Amino acid sequence: MSINKRITALRGFMEEKGLHAFIIPSTDSHLSEYPALHWASRVWISGFTGSAGTVVVTRGKAGLWTDSRYFLQAANELDENLITLFKEGLPDTPSIEEWLIAELEKGENVGIDGSVYAAKEAINLTLKLNMKGLHLISDYDPFDAIWHDRPAIPKNPIFVLPEKYTGEAANKKISRVCDAVEKAGAESLLVASLDTIAWIFNIRGNDVKCNPVAVSYAYISRKETVLFIDPEKLTAETADYLKSEGVTIAEYGKVLDYVSKVKTSVCLDGNKVTFKLYNTVPQGLRIVDIPSPADLMKSIKNKTEIEGFRKAMEKDGVALVRFFMWLEKAVPEGEVAEITIPAKLVEYRGQQQNFVGESFDTISGYGPNGAIVHYHVSEESSLPVKAEGLLLIDSGAQYFDGTTDITRTVSTGALSEQMKKDYTMVLKGHIGIATAIYPQGTRGSQIDILARKALWDNGLNYLHGTGHGIGHFLNVHEGPQNIRMNENPATLQIGMVTSNEPGLYRAGQYGIRIENLVLTRHEVTTGFGDFYSFETLTLCPIDTTPIIREMLTGKELAWFNEYHKQVYDRLSPLLDAEEKEWLKQKTNAI
Amino acid sequence: MSINKRITALRGFMEEKGLHAFIIPSTDSHLSEYPALHWASRVWISGFTGSAGTVVVTRGKAGLWTDSRYFLQAANELDENLITLFKEGLPDTPSIEEWLIAELEKGENVGIDGSVYAAKEAINLTLKLNMKGLHLISDYDPFDAIWHDRPAIPKNPIFVLPEKYTGEAANKKISRVCDAVEKAGAESLLVASLDTIAWIFNIRGNDVKCNPVAVSYAYISRKETVLFIDPEKLTAETADYLKSEGVTIAEYGKVLDYVSKVKTSVCLDGNKVTFKLYNTVPQGLRIVDIPSPADLMKSIKNKTEIEGFRKAMEKDGVALVRFFMWLEKAVPEGEVAEITIPAKLVEYRGQQQNFVGESFDTISGYGPNGAIVHYHVSEESSLPVKAEGLLLIDSGAQYFDGTTDITRTVSTGALSEQMKKDYTMVLKGHIGIATAIYPQGTRGSQIDILARKALWDNGLNYLHGTGHGIGHFLNVHEGPQNIRMNENPATLQIGMVTSNEPGLYRAGQYGIRIENLVLTRHEVTTGFGDFYSFETLTLCPIDTTPIIREMLTGKELAWFNEYHKQVYDRLSPLLDAEEKEWLKQKTNAI
Repeated sequence: MSINKRITALRGFMEEKGLHAFIIPSTDSHLSEYPALHWASRVWISGFTGSAGTVVVTRGKAGLWTDSRYFLQAANELDENLITLFKEGLPDTPSIEEWLIAELEKGENVGIDGSVYAAKEAINLTLKLNMKGLHLISDYDPFDAIWHDRPAIPKNPIFVLPEKYTGEAANKKISRVCDAVEKAGAESLLVASLDTIAWIFNIRGNDVKCNPVAVSYAYISRKETVLFIDPEKLTAETADYLKSEGVTIAEYGKVLDYVSKVKTSVCLDGNKVTFKLYNTVPQGLRIVDIPSPADLMKSIKNKTEIEGFRKAMEKDGVALVRFFMWLEKAVPEGEVAEITIPAKLVEYRGQQQNFVGESFDTISGYGPNGAIVHYHVSEESSLPVKAEGLLLIDSGAQYFDGTTDITRTVSTGALSEQMKKDYTMVLKGHIGIATAIYPQGTRGSQIDILARKALWDNGLNYLHGTGHGIGHFLNVHEGPQNIRMNENPATLQIGMVTSNEPGLYRAGQYGIRIENLVLTRHEVTTGFGDFYSFETLTLCPIDTTPIIREMLTGKELAWFNEYHKQVYDRLSPLLDAEEKEWLKQKTNAI
Repeated sequence: MSINKRITALRGFMEEKGLHAFIIPSTDSHLSEYPALHWASRVWISGFTGSAGTVVVTRGKAGLWTDSRYFLQAANELDENLITLFKEGLPDTPSIEEWLIAELEKGENVGIDGSVYAAKEAINLTLKLNMKGLHLISDYDPFDAIWHDRPAIPKNPIFVLPEKYTGEAANKKISRVCDAVEKAGAESLLVASLDTIAWIFNIRGNDVKCNPVAVSYAYISRKETVLFIDPEKLTAETADYLKSEGVTIAEYGKVLDYVSKVKTSVCLDGNKVTFKLYNTVPQGLRIVDIPSPADLMKSIKNKTEIEGFRKAMEKDGVALVRFFMWLEKAVPEGEVAEITIPAKLVEYRGQQQNFVGESFDTISGYGPNGAIVHYHVSEESSLPVKAEGLLLIDSGAQYFDGTTDITRTVSTGALSEQMKKDYTMVLKGHIGIATAIYPQGTRGSQIDILARKALWDNGLNYLHGTGHGIGHFLNVHEGPQNIRMNENPATLQIGMVTSNEPGLYRAGQYGIRIENLVLTRHEVTTGFGDFYSFETLTLCPIDTTPIIREMLTGKELAWFNEYHKQVYDRLSPLLDAEEKEWLKQKTNAI
C-alpha cells in the first residue's frame, strides 16, 4: 500500500467520522520514547522513520512536524507532494495548533486517538482549539480500520529479575509506592510507563527493541495491586511469582473497564498516562496529578543495583578494551567501516556474562557523520574509517546487572589543531561534571554549565542535553533527573545514575562526545548543609592522543590521571597479558 | 493602642463580618516590595517590622509566618503570648493553608483584603481552601475600620524625568507597549506596578522611601491610555506634559469603576495585579495573564539609560573613594560605629550632581553583624568598628542618571586565615560572573553556579540570590531577570543591568559580600549563535588586603587587575591629588 493510498484511506475514515483533521503522534498507549511496532502508525502513514515527529492530515493537506535532528532524514524520507515538512524551532514554522487554526473553519473537528496521546497534552490542545472554535474528538483509532497488516501488540514472555539483581522484593516496592502515594494525598497509583512497571514488579520483557519491558498497566493500592498484562506473556512460574508478591493479574485489555470502576482517589502523572485512561477515572474521584512517585523511587538506585552497575561497567570495560584493540589494528588495514562497528561491539559484549543485548542502536560516526548527533548508520551512509581524523562511537549494553551507555571519540590517525582544541574543550567539560560538588537540592540545569563553560568561553556549544538518567537493566533514558540547559525541577539525589556527555559538532567535519555514567553520592556535611558529588561508574580509557595538555588545569589533570589509574586497576585483573599491556599504555598518566 | 487591643479590634471586625480567620500580607494594592505606610497593616497589627512576613489571626489564635532572614528579629519584636512565630522553611512548620485547615471547621470563612493580595495567590488559596470545605471572603479591608490613625495614601507631587535621562519619550514607550500587548493577543494592558508606571510615563514620585515612584494605576491601549493618579500629585505642567504624551488623567480611586467597564481584551500579570482588580475585569472579556511585557521592556536599558548608569557609577565611585579614605583614617581613631556609616555615605554622595537619595537603607555590619544578611543597624545593635576583622557595607544611591547598589567588604585590621580564604573564594565567585560568556537565551539560574563554585567545592554556600535586576533611577530590585539557584524563565538579554553579589556568612563571626552591577552585552557571533557577556558598571576598588593571591587563576588575576585599572582610569580625573594617590595605591596590580 503506497503512502498516497494510506493517506487516502485515512481521509476516507475521517470523512466517515466527520473529522476535518487528524493528528498522529509518534508514541504508544504507554507514552514510550521507543514504542513497539504496533504503535508505529506515524511511520506507516508517512514513511518517516525518525524517533520524533508528528503527522497532521486534513482533508486536503498533510504535514510532518519534526525537530532539527531529523530535518535531513525527513526531507529524504517524505514525499513532499503528499506531506509537507514543517521544521520545528525555525522562526517561520507554525505550530501544529496554529496551522490547524489557519487551515480549518470554525466548528470543524480535529481528531486524535486519545489512547496514544498524553492526557496533559490533549487537555492543552483542547483548550487551544476551543479558543478558536474548533473541537477535539479523541474517540477513534483509525489505524485499526485502515492498517490491514498492522503488527499485533507483542506477546513476548516476561521473566522475573531475581532479588540478587534488584535488591528489593516487589512487595516491598509496592508498599513503599503506597507510602509515597498516601503522602501525596491519594489512595492508589495508576501506572502506564512500561519501565516503571518492570521496576516495581521486578519483571523484564522483550516487547521493545533495546528496552527490556513488557506492554502492561498497573494499579497499585493498599487493598489491591493489579498488573494488566496479556496472560500469554506469563508462564505458570511467573504467574505464581506475581501472586506470591501480592499482585492480582488481569488481562491487558481490561484496564479501562477496571479503572472506570475504581473507588479510590487516584495518583497519576498526566504526562505519562493517556488522555483516554485519564478520562476513564470516574468523575468525582480526586485525581492527584504529579510526577510519578514511583519514577523517583526507580531513579534512586539501591546498593544491589549500584553494585550491579559497577559489575556491568567492568564487563563493558573489558569488552570495550578488546573492541578498541581490534579497532586500532583493523583501521590501518582498511578493514573498518562505520557499519562494521555495531556488530563488532555486540560480538565483544556478547562474550560477557549476563549480556542481554544492546541498550540502544550504536551510533558510529566517522568524520562528517560524527557531526550528526542522532546518526544511524546504514549501508548507504556508511563511510570507511580511514587512518586519520576522529571516530565517534556511542553504544551501550543491557546486562542483568545493569545498563551501560558510553561514548568515546578516538583519533584514528592525524588530527588538525582544531580537532585537538575541540576535543580538549569537550574533555574539560566532561571533567567539570565529573568533579562537581553541589548542595543537596541542586537541579541538573544548575550544574549543566560546568560541561559547557570551556566551549561557551570560545563561542561554541552543543544543543543536546549533558546528561540523562539511566535505568537499572531498563531503559537507557529515564527520569526524573537530567542535566540540561532547560529547566527540570527534579533534583540530583544520592543513588541516581546519570550520563555525563558533553560534545561538539562541526557540521560537515566531525563530531566529538565523551560520555561516562556517574552516580550521585554524599560528599560532605558542613555547617552549610549536605553536599553531593559524582562517582564515575564507566570504566574505559579516554583517548589521550587528541589532548592538548597545557589546556588542562592541575585539577583537571589530576582527575584524568586518577580516572585512568582506576580504569587500569579495575579492568586489568580481568584481561590477558596483551590486553593488560595495551590498557597500561592507554591509561598511563599524562 | 497596644498590639493586644489591635488584635481584639480585628477579631471584633471578623465576628461582625462572619469571618473565622484573617490573613494580612505585607504588600499593598500595587504588590510592591516596599509599600507606602498606608499599607503597613501587618506591621501595625503585629509590631513586626521586617520586610517579609504574613500574619494570620483566628478567633482564638494568631501567627506570623516569616523566613530565615527574620527569625531573630521577629522573635525580638513579637509578643509570643499574642502571636506565635512560624519559621518558614523548617521541616515542622505548617504552611498557612495547612494551619488554617487544622484550626478551622468545615464551612468556616477565611478573610483576606482582595485589594492587597496578588490575584494568582488568591486564586491558589481559594482552590486549596475549597478542597477542605473552607471559603475565602476577599471583600473587606478591616484596617479602614479599626486602624484609626492609619496614614493616608501619600499625595506627594510627581515630576517628569526629561528625555535626556530616559532616552525615549513616553508616547513612544506606550506605542511599543501596545505592539507587545497586541503580539501577546490582547488589546490593552493593565498595570498596577508603580515602577513600571513610572518607567512608561517617564514620571517619578516620592511616595515610597528609597523608591522614586508614585501611587497610581495605568490602562494602556491604542485608543486610550489612562493614568489613575491623585490630581493633587500633578502640577499644571506635569498634567500638560502627560496630555501632550497622549495620556488621559483620571482619579486614583476611579480605576475599579473604569476597569469594570472596559470592552477590550486585557493583558495583565496575575502576580502583579490584585485579586480585586483582576475580578473587576468584566466577565467574558479575554484576559491574557502573562509576565508583563512592559516589565521586560523596562529591564532592557536603552543607550541613554546605560550612559546614565555609567555617569552614576563615576559619581558613586568618587563618593565611595572619599568615604573609604575617611573610613581608613577614622577607624583606628575609634571614631566609627556601624551606625555612623549610613549618614557618612549620604554626606559624600550628596556632594554629587543629581543625587536624589539612598536607593535602600544601608547595611553596615561589622564582625558578627556582617553575617546577618538583611541587617538593619539600630542604636541598640550598632557595634563600634575596631581596627581588626571585616566590615560589610551594602549601599546605593538614586541619581537622575541611574540607580546604584554596591557592596564592599573591607578589612579594618588584622584578619584570620579563614577570613582571607573565605574572602578570596567570594571574590573568585564574583569574577566567575564578571567574566561569564553565555549564549543568547541563557537564564540566570544557569550561570549562578559560577558565583558559588569555589564555595561549593569547599562545602560552603550562601542562601540569597547572586543577582537581581535594577531599575534606571527606579527600584533597586526589579525583574524579570535575576541570577539565583531558583529557576526563573526570564533570560539575560542585551541591555539588562543585574547585580553580581556572591557572599559568605559565618554566623556569629563575620559576613563577606562583593557586589558590582553588570550590564549584559553582545560578546561574539559564531556558527554556534550569539554569545553574551557582562560589562561591569560599578567603579570602586575591591579591598586587596584579604586576598590570598595563589588562590586566583591567571585569568582571575587578569580580570581583577584590569578592573582596578579601569576604576583608576575612570575615577582619577574626577579626584584631587591626595584622593588620586590613595586610589592609585588601592588599584595597583596585584
